[in-house]
Amino acid sequence: MKDIRDKARERIKSHCKVCPLCDGRACAGKVPGIGGIGTGVSFQNNVSALAGHRLAMRVLHDANEPLTGVSLWGRELALPVLAAPIGSVKNNLGSDLSEGEYSEMLISGCVAAGTMAGIGDTAKPETFKQGLDQIRDRGRSVIPFIKPWALQEVCVRLDMAVAAGCDSCGMDVDAAGLTILRRLDAPVATRTPRELAAIIAEAHKRKLKFIVKGIMTVDEARAAADAGADAVLVSNHGGRVLDHTPGTAEVLPAIAAAVGGRTLVMMDGGVRSGADVLKALALGADIVLICRPVAVAIHGGGTDGAARYFNVIRDELSQCMRLTGCKDVASAGAHLLC
Amino acid sequence: MKDIRDKARERIKSHCKVCPLCDGRACAGKVPGIGGIGTGVSFQNNVSALAGHRLAMRVLHDANEPLTGVSLWGRELALPVLAAPIGSVKNNLGSDLSEGEYSEMLISGCVAAGTMAGIGDTAKPETFKQGLDQIRDRGRSVIPFIKPWALQEVCVRLDMAVAAGCDSCGMDVDAAGLTILRRLDAPVATRTPRELAAIIAEAHKRKLKFIVKGIMTVDEARAAADAGADAVLVSNHGGRVLDHTPGTAEVLPAIAAAVGGRTLVMMDGGVRSGADVLKALALGADIVLICRPVAVAIHGGGTDGAARYFNVIRDELSQCMRLTGCKDVASAGAHLLC
Amino acid sequence: MKDIRDKARERIKSHCKVCPLCDGRACAGKVPGIGGIGTGVSFQNNVSALAGHRLAMRVLHDANEPLTGVSLWGRELALPVLAAPIGSVKNNLGSDLSEGEYSEMLISGCVAAGTMAGIGDTAKPETFKQGLDQIRDRGRSVIPFIKPWALQEVCVRLDMAVAAGCDSCGMDVDAAGLTILRRLDAPVATRTPRELAAIIAEAHKRKLKFIVKGIMTVDEARAAADAGADAVLVSNHGGRVLDHTPGTAEVLPAIAAAVGGRTLVMMDGGVRSGADVLKALALGADIVLICRPVAVAIHGGGTDGAARYFNVIRDELSQCMRLTGCKDVASAGAHLLC
Amino acid sequence: MKDIRDKARERIKSHCKVCPLCDGRACAGKVPGIGGIGTGVSFQNNVSALAGHRLAMRVLHDANEPLTGVSLWGRELALPVLAAPIGSVKNNLGSDLSEGEYSEMLISGCVAAGTMAGIGDTAKPETFKQGLDQIRDRGRSVIPFIKPWALQEVCVRLDMAVAAGCDSCGMDVDAAGLTILRRLDAPVATRTPRELAAIIAEAHKRKLKFIVKGIMTVDEARAAADAGADAVLVSNHGGRVLDHTPGTAEVLPAIAAAVGGRTLVMMDGGVRSGADVLKALALGADIVLICRPVAVAIHGGGTDGAARYFNVIRDELSQCMRLTGCKDVASAGAHLLC
Repeated sequence: MKDIRDKARERIKSHCKVCPLCDGRACAGKVPGIGGIGTGVSFQNNVSALAGHRLAMRVLHDANEPLTGVSLWGRELALPVLAAPIGSVKNNLGSDLSEGEYSEMLISGCVAAGTMAGIGDTAKPETFKQGLDQIRDRGRSVIPFIKPWALQEVCVRLDMAVAAGCDSCGMDVDAAGLTILRRLDAPVATRTPRELAAIIAEAHKRKLKFIVKGIMTVDEARAAADAGADAVLVSNHGGRVLDHTPGTAEVLPAIAAAVGGRTLVMMDGGVRSGADVLKALALGADIVLICRPVAVAIHGGGTDGAARYFNVIRDELSQCMRLTGCKDVASAGAHLLC
Repeated sequence: MKDIRDKARERIKSHCKVCPLCDGRACAGKVPGIGGIGTGVSFQNNVSALAGHRLAMRVLHDANEPLTGVSLWGRELALPVLAAPIGSVKNNLGSDLSEGEYSEMLISGCVAAGTMAGIGDTAKPETFKQGLDQIRDRGRSVIPFIKPWALQEVCVRLDMAVAAGCDSCGMDVDAAGLTILRRLDAPVATRTPRELAAIIAEAHKRKLKFIVKGIMTVDEARAAADAGADAVLVSNHGGRVLDHTPGTAEVLPAIAAAVGGRTLVMMDGGVRSGADVLKALALGADIVLICRPVAVAIHGGGTDGAARYFNVIRDELSQCMRLTGCKDVASAGAHLLC
Repeated sequence: MKDIRDKARERIKSHCKVCPLCDGRACAGKVPGIGGIGTGVSFQNNVSALAGHRLAMRVLHDANEPLTGVSLWGRELALPVLAAPIGSVKNNLGSDLSEGEYSEMLISGCVAAGTMAGIGDTAKPETFKQGLDQIRDRGRSVIPFIKPWALQEVCVRLDMAVAAGCDSCGMDVDAAGLTILRRLDAPVATRTPRELAAIIAEAHKRKLKFIVKGIMTVDEARAAADAGADAVLVSNHGGRVLDHTPGTAEVLPAIAAAVGGRTLVMMDGGVRSGADVLKALALGADIVLICRPVAVAIHGGGTDGAARYFNVIRDELSQCMRLTGCKDVASAGAHLLC
Repeated sequence: MKDIRDKARERIKSHCKVCPLCDGRACAGKVPGIGGIGTGVSFQNNVSALAGHRLAMRVLHDANEPLTGVSLWGRELALPVLAAPIGSVKNNLGSDLSEGEYSEMLISGCVAAGTMAGIGDTAKPETFKQGLDQIRDRGRSVIPFIKPWALQEVCVRLDMAVAAGCDSCGMDVDAAGLTILRRLDAPVATRTPRELAAIIAEAHKRKLKFIVKGIMTVDEARAAADAGADAVLVSNHGGRVLDHTPGTAEVLPAIAAAVGGRTLVMMDGGVRSGADVLKALALGADIVLICRPVAVAIHGGGTDGAARYFNVIRDELSQCMRLTGCKDVASAGAHLLC
């Protein structure tokens, strides 16, 4: 990966230093840009929360060839890791790629590595549609995340997702804090559980699974599950909407304990290695999402870079599972940590 | 605010570096000056105590347009934040402003932003009177803080405050530690609860609400409330009188729990952002005071600088309330923290 | 030791900086090399876990001349410290010594200091045999550690150990994670308790005591004891196979409490001084192993360097025992710590 | 004190950097020299243990003019702080003062400031006697600390102390770890409680009060009290005999709780300010000793430097007592901390 990272650094250095450990220090406060908002500690807490957990090494067992695969809503993934959606790569990374070029590489890379890609929403529905049109033949490998618009605006986008062949989608409700989207004529807003239930009902009517992204408390995880969410995604938006939040790995265990039986539990934020993936699984996640390092890999190696990055993560995960005695993803649990 | 801060730095750099985060490190030990006394950790603890708390992000609710306003003794404030009093700006900041010029900008800025200004006391009553004469028409927006003189000296100043149109005042009892004021013929001193009760009775006789500033323990908060205080102000004098105290946010919750039902609870020390304000409210404060950053804003932008600073704080507070699901100031509580 | 360390630094500086405190920071991630894998924190945790314990100084007692000697399986050692096995000194240290030269110095140095040397296994049985042939007359002072091969491969090596005069051996089961050994035709693998029991039975059949190395959890310590282990060696392989493990001193007390009555408890990882040895004993270890500093001493002073290093450790241990009131190794316990 | 410190730095810079905060970092490992032994953490823990405590500020009380005086065995001291004994100033500080010159300044400075001086023992009785002869007329202001020799050697020195007019003495039993003194024909050694009792009986026979220095555990504090000690002095010898001990302020509270009713409790280690003195009193000490900063003051200002240093400490203590509401030394207690 070194060449990929070096090339990426050259290309996006105005916005991202491609640090040895992507931990939110060098880019603190750079929003837009790739950093965490304000002091940047919300981003940094994501990384340090995972670093604070340690793996219990075990070698007396038969999990010598662990299985990293996982099934998600009828689809077999090579690893329990998806690409998280990212907003404008021009604004956030200073990228010279168009949104279309970037999405193409992201999705192709994910498919090549046996996983799926989250993609982001835009203020104008037409732009969102252009993005979806482009991936029509690979729709089932793409999860569009819609911003927290009013119901009518959301339905327009749900229809587009269906038309593109997607069978799952999500909403990053925490985007309610994005100033630029709050100033629109039809702005984003926080959504009440009742509004969320109506939105999810529309998604289900269209046979779309629905992920509620931006959950950081047990009560909102319960509210999302009660509203019909197929998955809650524990996320603080990469630390980019609210300063001073805890790291996602800190709140994950209680959320998983509260709703893990009723809905899938996903997590993003600070996941940088196979060990981090295994820690998140052990803390209660069913699926983990990675964002910034995937974007770096694409800028350093395009489609192939993304695929190679996920393959490295899968190999690391496999090794970590072997040395903790974890034979498959479903077997991960708190006993792997100490 | 960048221009304002840059200009301020140019103007007061001999005493204050206008650091990216005003945390008491660069100025440690500078008293007079703007630093904390001795090792400076009392100042630094104020900042780190707030930094140690994290906000519980919530997005599934109807608090999309939170209300930051608050009512204080019959006056409506745009935000639950006042300007804390500061001593001689010449000695402490190396300011080229006269005390009169500074006070004028401070009070005007506070009024413009919909809040109130604390102003300080001086060794000579005449100087104190000059300051109050100047603000006669805006007296209700000003809270004079009187030093812990003997009762007779205090009464002289209470009369001046009434004459200036003030309807509230306070006493920073912790100024009993200021060496320069201890050497006067009529020196400051610590005050017994009985002496404090007599002082407060005199204030009440004059229809002045009375704030006891410098409370850092539950027992003294109770003593102040018993003595008739309308508010206790949890404060370590910005870390400038006693080295090695805890941060104010550390002692605030127990104090609020003990006297919160009987008297208002105010806090200052280390508040630097809307997130800090919300944390203080969540920890039990009714009103928060800010000192050093306001002084910086005035030296960088005068009246307008002060007003803009409070507006930024209000906007940040509003955004933090939105993303924690806090619909108004009264709704803030421990559930916002994690 | 300064000259020895200076000379060693000159000789192995490409791989090891011979830092003032060997703590895994300068070499983080260097595998092969001498560092910990990945972030290097597993190595660093070994050091910091020991550093986190403090010695209870005591001076009112009769332990003025403490005894550092210990008996291991019928052999009297001058101190409760062995040399841990190290893999290829060429790959890991950039050494200009052949494996044979290095082993010769290591074993001679250990014998001179009154202790024993662990030696490592190799992919090819013939190389392993060459190493053992060389030490035939000192076999009882050598403990060969065999990699976790399948039973048949292990038996070949057990026979060699017997032929070399050894009466003890071990297996570093955690070597199951070494990628290079996993790609062989007859690769290493994690071993089930049943497989381990069969291996230990073969060792016992040959009158060899058997140490299970790589134990980091209470359950695997119990499994090893149940499988017949004569000793469990608490070890994370110097932090070189799995990133993000705890330090060995963190897991040692619970393991010692669980199996200490049934099997010997050994520990390696981060031991750098006599104080560290005493801490490990106090935490429940019967025997402590040291690796990297021994290798440094050999590169700086050959046989004599190794012997002097162990003598320094013994002197330090003696002084620490004197000033904690610990009259002999068996008397070490939790009361020495605070 | 700045001039004094600057001058001292010039004079002893080969051994002591006279750091802004004397915390054992710059001199770590320098023994002989002024540092802590080995890693230096025993010295550093003394400082950080005190820094870890915070003062509860109180201002509503009548302790506006606190009393810093204390009575020790019939003598009135201006403050509860003594000068701790120091070994050879040539070896440990690179001083150009003779031992006699140094002692003269130390004792005169202590007397001038209203306190007492501890002085050290030497390998040769004659040298010890020379030191005592010199202070004959001020014997009651001097506490000689004798090394843990065998009883006969101790008695020789007790007689000398009596002859010099002293009415108290002590033994730094932890000096049993000093290598240079262990190699003598009549070496130091740890002392059993029975030996200690015999030594103390000899001191009492001569009407000398006896301080047992080097106590770091509750059990040895009890043993010392049982042996008849008039005071236990909680000390790790400035971190100079055993690496990795806790800071003295960490073990002080339990020791004071255990023996505080039966014997005086003294403490040294890391005390650098009046706030540190008050913390130590609040943690249970009756008397506090300071070593390194006194030696610095003497090298910067001679007799006057020592006196000024103690006066500064007394002023700081007074201010800290005022702002914590502590009216006299006997009133200090855990309620001053938070």
